[in-house]
Amino acid sequence: MNELTISLDSHLSQPLYEQIYEYLKNEIQSGGLPCQERLPSTRMLSKHLDVSRSTVTLAYEQLLSEGYIENQPSRGYFVSDVEGLYRISRTSQSSSGTAPKEGPVYQYDFSPSGVDLDKFPHNIWRRLSKNLLLDNSQDLFRLGDAKGERGLRETIASYLHQARGVSCSPDQIVIGAGNDYLLMLLHTLLGEKRVYAFERYTYKKASDIVKVLGNTVEVTGMDESGMKVDALKKNGASVAYVMPSHQYPLGIVMPVKRRLQLLAWAQEEEGRYIIEDDYDSEFRYKGKPIPALQGYDTSGKVIYIGTFSKSIAPAIRISFLVLPEPLLEVYEKRGRLFSTTVPRMDQQILTEFIQGGYYERHLNRMRSVYRTRHDMLLEGLRPFQKAFKIRGEHAGTHILLELTNGMTEKEAIEAAKKEAIRIYGLSSYELGEKHPSVTLILGYVNIREKEIPDAAKLIGKLLLRE
Amino acid sequence: MNELTISLDSHLSQPLYEQIYEYLKNEIQSGGLPCQERLPSTRMLSKHLDVSRSTVTLAYEQLLSEGYIENQPSRGYFVSDVEGLYRISRTSQSSSGTAPKEGPVYQYDFSPSGVDLDKFPHNIWRRLSKNLLLDNSQDLFRLGDAKGERGLRETIASYLHQARGVSCSPDQIVIGAGNDYLLMLLHTLLGEKRVYAFERYTYKKASDIVKVLGNTVEVTGMDESGMKVDALKKNGASVAYVMPSHQYPLGIVMPVKRRLQLLAWAQEEEGRYIIEDDYDSEFRYKGKPIPALQGYDTSGKVIYIGTFSKSIAPAIRISFLVLPEPLLEVYEKRGRLFSTTVPRMDQQILTEFIQGGYYERHLNRMRSVYRTRHDMLLEGLRPFQKAFKIRGEHAGTHILLELTNGMTEKEAIEAAKKEAIRIYGLSSYELGEKHPSVTLILGYVNIREKEIPDAAKLIGKLLLRE
Repeated sequence: MNELTISLDSHLSQPLYEQIYEYLKNEIQSGGLPCQERLPSTRMLSKHLDVSRSTVTLAYEQLLSEGYIENQPSRGYFVSDVEGLYRISRTSQSSSGTAPKEGPVYQYDFSPSGVDLDKFPHNIWRRLSKNLLLDNSQDLFRLGDAKGERGLRETIASYLHQARGVSCSPDQIVIGAGNDYLLMLLHTLLGEKRVYAFERYTYKKASDIVKVLGNTVEVTGMDESGMKVDALKKNGASVAYVMPSHQYPLGIVMPVKRRLQLLAWAQEEEGRYIIEDDYDSEFRYKGKPIPALQGYDTSGKVIYIGTFSKSIAPAIRISFLVLPEPLLEVYEKRGRLFSTTVPRMDQQILTEFIQGGYYERHLNRMRSVYRTRHDMLLEGLRPFQKAFKIRGEHAGTHILLELTNGMTEKEAIEAAKKEAIRIYGLSSYELGEKHPSVTLILGYVNIREKEIPDAAKLIGKLLLRE
Repeated sequence: MNELTISLDSHLSQPLYEQIYEYLKNEIQSGGLPCQERLPSTRMLSKHLDVSRSTVTLAYEQLLSEGYIENQPSRGYFVSDVEGLYRISRTSQSSSGTAPKEGPVYQYDFSPSGVDLDKFPHNIWRRLSKNLLLDNSQDLFRLGDAKGERGLRETIASYLHQARGVSCSPDQIVIGAGNDYLLMLLHTLLGEKRVYAFERYTYKKASDIVKVLGNTVEVTGMDESGMKVDALKKNGASVAYVMPSHQYPLGIVMPVKRRLQLLAWAQEEEGRYIIEDDYDSEFRYKGKPIPALQGYDTSGKVIYIGTFSKSIAPAIRISFLVLPEPLLEVYEKRGRLFSTTVPRMDQQILTEFIQGGYYERHLNRMRSVYRTRHDMLLEGLRPFQKAFKIRGEHAGTHILLELTNGMTEKEAIEAAKKEAIRIYGLSSYELGEKHPSVTLILGYVNIREKEIPDAAKLIGKLLLRE
């Protein structure tokens, strides 16, 4: 491409990365940088402008996330077809539960899914990878144990014990490339045509997967303690899928009494199991961390599933099952057949990441980052609280607003859309027949700290119909 | 550990790595290095002895592969419990199809599975990883497409077209963490309770997996052209699992006529499919490469499955499916739900490995390495050929010896064991009821070139009962 002539002013209050971002965005919008034009690499541009590489990366990231540029693997960054994107955005009427990749229609996106990768400790990860590649690399290219490397399983067992109150031996742990794969493997262990109970509002993808695998999904009633055990007893389910530490999306913490009732239900019949999805227990801002249900289980009924995709990065394709004894036997017969889905190298990097204390530091940092956003969002919404009640706060990466202003969920989403704000509705997380909903979901993973006051104000205003 | 006092003599004809290996082995056997003693790192020892790091690595690799030492992830190399290993080896009566990890009982192991990692281009892989980690890393930590990165799928499609005569678009390709996982995913697409036809002698693991997933496996007769289509028609199968380019383990190349018959069978009924496992077509030493069956398919009946675990390294957990159009539609409905099992980073490294021409170079090199071993093995066995007929040669990484000396497979394996040579029998690859077998399998992936003459002579002698 031609030389970029960006004039940066480090005395401006606007950060340098924003100046680069603004300049490039304007160039793209005006056609100065035509569609499919290749941008200079971050390295080249940082040299050229005499700024740090991360400044340029941040600007590119922003352009990427807003759809102005694309990253073509092993080729570099290219200007997107912005005209096309606008057109697509205008005609698109879908409102699925995930953030759209296309188009710069929304100024703020409160998607409850995703991970803030700005804070990912790239340097450490890079150093660990580099050292490993230097050290006895040949061995790392062998296949390894079907369950995963012993070292990683030991490390996870000890982490789970300390941080989550899970009691298990490394032998009970099976490592796999993501929750979706592990649900597939679990399906093979549990046998076909099971009836799975899911709460009415839940992590829908898991229920879709279970169904596609040939099982039946029973939508099970819930109250403020989570899944109702009497409802569970009635629907003939033999597997209950729950998130006791922090129910998704409602944020319910299952009280001990309900936990024990659930365990009692499982004990009543052989072959009954509880799947405990502990997807985001790392993020809790108030009160003590809540121990896992698995820790209460003395009769081998709880299957614990955890992941590093949420707490580190989505591309870290490492999740794990903690199998109770009876299923461990089944695993040895039917599951061990399946070779590991996670490269040894990646397992080794993660092991050193945890053992070196980097994971703990990263979690603490993310907890603080998300907590600040959480607090700022609550703070920003406070002046408008006549219009809603806030629920599910103090944990995770989203909050719920139950509207009391007479608006429906859909009306609020539409109103926000007009302000270029994307918010989500609880009904996207509902299984079965949809009930009328007045509850909104606001995630703060994809929103920058400094944007929150403005975004919260805009939302508050439109909900108060000011 | 105490200072190692190895005196190396670079004027000896024995290579330096062997001197280190011999010294350590003797120390371990004599108890001079007790069980669980930690060995110095390869870096430290190479400095201490003033030899190159790879020399020490080679010695350690040899000790590792013979079970004298163990690699404990993130801790280093430790002396194994050799006593225990000996005892295990002596009492173990199993003769499964894979090489044992324990024990230094066997001097030579002719296992037909595995990959020679000595030749793995570590430096290039390391460089590609390093560069990627420096370049726009944040993006690499996002989740990516469920099917796999577009760039890698394009690269694979183009490679398959050129090298294997497979005709497909990148859209038809689904990347996954190993064949076992992809068989699981395929099972979800094909629906439950299918009848799969496998040849009597086959890649047993695939048939075990298919069975564990809830399908029926029909053992199907074969002749010198591979799976018999009339047998297939009789057994009610709707999926045929074949390896037309180089049948495992018999090495049969399916002639065009049989291929067309197989395709005609699939076309007769909707829902019938052929799974073409093209696991080792890269290694062919005589004649032209044989195009894939997929290339003959004009009616969307062939599911092609390929892997980089065999051609690069087992820990490269990257395999891929090429789905025919009808299944692609099913994939969009039922398969896309499952997030990718391969990290973006690894997909990107592989893409650059192929695009940079390194894969081609690596394949050429391995072809030449394996070809030399293949030729030397045939050469070494020639003086004894009164005792057997050689079959399945000129391709892959093993040959078959059909005994004509009156010995059974089992007798030959036992006789070889007394000479500390591990050889394998065809019956380990037989499904269903076992037939008496007089056929041996000799793989040359795990045997060093210079060992082949000696090993071949030992085998030849014992088969001739000299």
